[in-house]
Amino acid sequence: MSSPFTPEHVAEWVSFGPKLKGKPTPEQQVAAQERKTKCMEMKVRLVEELNDPNWTLKKVEKELDRLVAEGASAANEIPRPAYLDPPSGTRDFYPEEMRVQNWLFDKFRESARVFGFQEYDAPVLEHVQLYERKAGEEIVDQMYNFVDKEGDHVTLRPEMTPTLARMVLNKTNLQTGEVRVPLPLKWFSIPQCWRFETTQRGRKREHYQWNMDIVGVDHVHAELELLAAASYFFKSLGIGPDVVGIKVNSRAVLEAVLAKHGVKKGQKNEADGGDLFASACVIIDKLDKIGGCAVTEQLATIGVSSESSAEILKALEAPTIEELAILIGDECEAVEEVKRLFQLADEYGIGDYLVFDASVVRGLAYYTGVVWEAFDRSGELRAIMGGGRYDRLLELYGGEKCQVPCVGFGFGDCVIMELLKDHGKLPKFTGSGVDYVVCAFSPDLYGQAANISLKLRMTGASVDLMPTPKKKVAASFKHADQAGARRMVFVAPDEIAKGVVRIKDLRTKDKNGDAIQVDCPLDALDTVDDLVATAVGDA
Amino acid sequence: MSSPFTPEHVAEWVSFGPKLKGKPTPEQQVAAQERKTKCMEMKVRLVEELNDPNWTLKKVEKELDRLVAEGASAANEIPRPAYLDPPSGTRDFYPEEMRVQNWLFDKFRESARVFGFQEYDAPVLEHVQLYERKAGEEIVDQMYNFVDKEGDHVTLRPEMTPTLARMVLNKTNLQTGEVRVPLPLKWFSIPQCWRFETTQRGRKREHYQWNMDIVGVDHVHAELELLAAASYFFKSLGIGPDVVGIKVNSRAVLEAVLAKHGVKKGQKNEADGGDLFASACVIIDKLDKIGGCAVTEQLATIGVSSESSAEILKALEAPTIEELAILIGDECEAVEEVKRLFQLADEYGIGDYLVFDASVVRGLAYYTGVVWEAFDRSGELRAIMGGGRYDRLLELYGGEKCQVPCVGFGFGDCVIMELLKDHGKLPKFTGSGVDYVVCAFSPDLYGQAANISLKLRMTGASVDLMPTPKKKVAASFKHADQAGARRMVFVAPDEIAKGVVRIKDLRTKDKNGDAIQVDCPLDALDTVDDLVATAVGDA
Repeated sequence: MSSPFTPEHVAEWVSFGPKLKGKPTPEQQVAAQERKTKCMEMKVRLVEELNDPNWTLKKVEKELDRLVAEGASAANEIPRPAYLDPPSGTRDFYPEEMRVQNWLFDKFRESARVFGFQEYDAPVLEHVQLYERKAGEEIVDQMYNFVDKEGDHVTLRPEMTPTLARMVLNKTNLQTGEVRVPLPLKWFSIPQCWRFETTQRGRKREHYQWNMDIVGVDHVHAELELLAAASYFFKSLGIGPDVVGIKVNSRAVLEAVLAKHGVKKGQKNEADGGDLFASACVIIDKLDKIGGCAVTEQLATIGVSSESSAEILKALEAPTIEELAILIGDECEAVEEVKRLFQLADEYGIGDYLVFDASVVRGLAYYTGVVWEAFDRSGELRAIMGGGRYDRLLELYGGEKCQVPCVGFGFGDCVIMELLKDHGKLPKFTGSGVDYVVCAFSPDLYGQAANISLKLRMTGASVDLMPTPKKKVAASFKHADQAGARRMVFVAPDEIAKGVVRIKDLRTKDKNGDAIQVDCPLDALDTVDDLVATAVGDA
Repeated sequence: MSSPFTPEHVAEWVSFGPKLKGKPTPEQQVAAQERKTKCMEMKVRLVEELNDPNWTLKKVEKELDRLVAEGASAANEIPRPAYLDPPSGTRDFYPEEMRVQNWLFDKFRESARVFGFQEYDAPVLEHVQLYERKAGEEIVDQMYNFVDKEGDHVTLRPEMTPTLARMVLNKTNLQTGEVRVPLPLKWFSIPQCWRFETTQRGRKREHYQWNMDIVGVDHVHAELELLAAASYFFKSLGIGPDVVGIKVNSRAVLEAVLAKHGVKKGQKNEADGGDLFASACVIIDKLDKIGGCAVTEQLATIGVSSESSAEILKALEAPTIEELAILIGDECEAVEEVKRLFQLADEYGIGDYLVFDASVVRGLAYYTGVVWEAFDRSGELRAIMGGGRYDRLLELYGGEKCQVPCVGFGFGDCVIMELLKDHGKLPKFTGSGVDYVVCAFSPDLYGQAANISLKLRMTGASVDLMPTPKKKVAASFKHADQAGARRMVFVAPDEIAKGVVRIKDLRTKDKNGDAIQVDCPLDALDTVDDLVATAVGDA
């Protein structure tokens, strides 16, 4: 892991004075306590700034200590080139971090699989045009875009949904709107998505996002399926409905509310000529962040009166769909749809994860119907996942014939990791998965050791062939320990002369407390498990 | 899959006239034959231009026919926006292509695992500085680089090795050169790598590349391990040493050859002040492509006389390491190393994949020792994989203390796919992996059907819940067929009243040739397999 800390951080850390060794005298005790407090304050501050589950308090301390030690030991300090760090706001995944990421992604994939979704992928580079929506969306304002050497306007994708839409349209006859593959499509992907904003410590410029989408279903059964998949995923991680919830609302309901106040879909907004309703949604989505006054101000810029804003804000506080329905007054299909969604969710067995929340609108302009976001019930983390229905996106790209209903969600890899850590739900990732370390006793036995390694690999075992022959068994043990191996194979002259190798099983012990060992014939290396099992039985 | 063909292609295809239906008359026969020839010529040309194993002759024909049909059916033609295609030279992966990619990547991962390698990853975006090497390398000349909005010079990575070096240096004390994690490191990754060159049909701008590297071993045992892993990978795909070989050479041997002709390592070349030997290697690497005369010309630009070039070119033709040793004359450690490598490879059991080839130098400036590339013995494909030792790269980035020996290879995803197709070694990817399709008989049973789906998923099954309730069984069958499911679950009122669901197993037949069906109690959905097995036994 590269260091996120600057020389200024190191200087600040050093300024607290060195750590005391041994038992402090009463006079020292006050200073030691003071130092401890300062260190803790700085660590807490840095952890908050970094906002990265990998950087725990302990790790921050270790890293700062390391930097101090490295600086102190430098007779001639070599400047650390900036190009050794990953680019600003991005992450390297060392093997220990990769194991965690693979574990999480496997959980994503497994949830997608049991729900019958098929994986797809697309280039991280996309056309800027796909994101040119007039709505003041944060995701579009922060694009990682550039002009390539041939003049094409491209960007590291900020999100996956437009790519999915593009791919579906490539299977669609634009003249007729007919999709040439059987609908519905149930597709998923785990793309890396990017954004560019001026560097600010701890804000990432990339994250991975599990995307699940259903294409071709125009009613709430599709929403339900996605909400069920997300609930299943939480459950499979041991995260119950007491820890997370999914706030559900519908833009179609909000549309009815806003229509009463003159904000109608299809109208153009006064600011940039974009869709008035979509722009209003993007503004209302910021309510939690910027507050009601600022929302009222921003709504005014697209032509919503302050009286209307007040009524709209009031409607967003409706505690149940029934009460919101009363505010709307008229019969409203969208309200019935939301009611049906909640009723079916209960029958499905996922109702305990869902809550109605009239203030959830999501910040993307293209949503048209039901929208949702997952949140931690303790209220400490940002949104865990967000999604909704976007029935007009394919039409926007492919033309008026392409009326293909879609629903989907995006589930980032960062907030869920914080949640899992906070709740102690991350498994211990110990060991490297290596089964055997094979050690040649001397250089002339190296070829033989290599051959034995290959034979063990043919049985499916993960084998680390020690690259340097060693007479001393202690060195081999150290290597096996570092590799996290469970068995060692010694290729030594006496045993080889007898046509066997000695294998020590480091996870079992005989009655003397020593690792159990067996001699395995070279031509029966696939029987090691049996030999060890027998030896364990005898011991 | 998006169409790579332009309206011009379609027009050309149309110009050959329509396909004849029925048996042609003798007069028609000549015209039909002529048409066939023209079509075939065009298809062959396009397949060559596309240079993509996905685009077979048959697929090209189908796609052109489709475009023609689509054009013909268009009353008002809608222009197809360019942004619907993936960016120039990049690939979308639809589910059917993703299954193939996942299969290949799993094979990469499995080979890495049995050899005890650990996976890592890093951002696709990298610092341009990491690739600033003065050597005229193609990979650096074709960088996909740009300046970001804060003025940083970044690029979509052209290769992974500099990133690996950067990551290792982030675990290294630059003052002492000490790596803070136990060596050797055995790491692998499957990054997407990018290059930018002016668009030319069929040349990709991205590919995936399996990277395997060993850090911290300064002798041929590391090379051997990597060559063994590649050989194991080939073998696991059913690609024997009769189909592919790995040409092995050593730049250290070449260094001895070139030193006799005044080209010495550490000297600066006359053209751009880069390392003379590295520049010479990059030039010599092009021998196959540009021929001896052009190589001689280019060597002249860095100050190598034509007489020396002639001698060097002669040495590159040495058929064995022994004959090359004679040309060098003096005792040479590098020669002994190569001999030892081949001897150990035989003992290892991978010798039949390896061949000595004095002309292999690889086109990257940083290689210092043994280099290799895998090739298909029929000589039809480009290099399948390339690698070598690069003992000086960490020093270049981290300073003179960082003398950490490294060896690695990069194995692209495209050429191997062509090879697998040519040799019929790709498995059939039939079916979607869906186990059950669950169908509700009527809307009021949908919640129950959803609940049953969830219970089946809890047993690990992949379940597709049909989004629309259907009374007609035929519609459900069609859906199950499209989903590729093996079982259907009917949630219908009569069975539900009895507390069961009817399950049809589409892959088994009773004596009447009908799919076997069982009624499974709702509270015992984890027993379906047993019920079906019993029913099959009875049938």
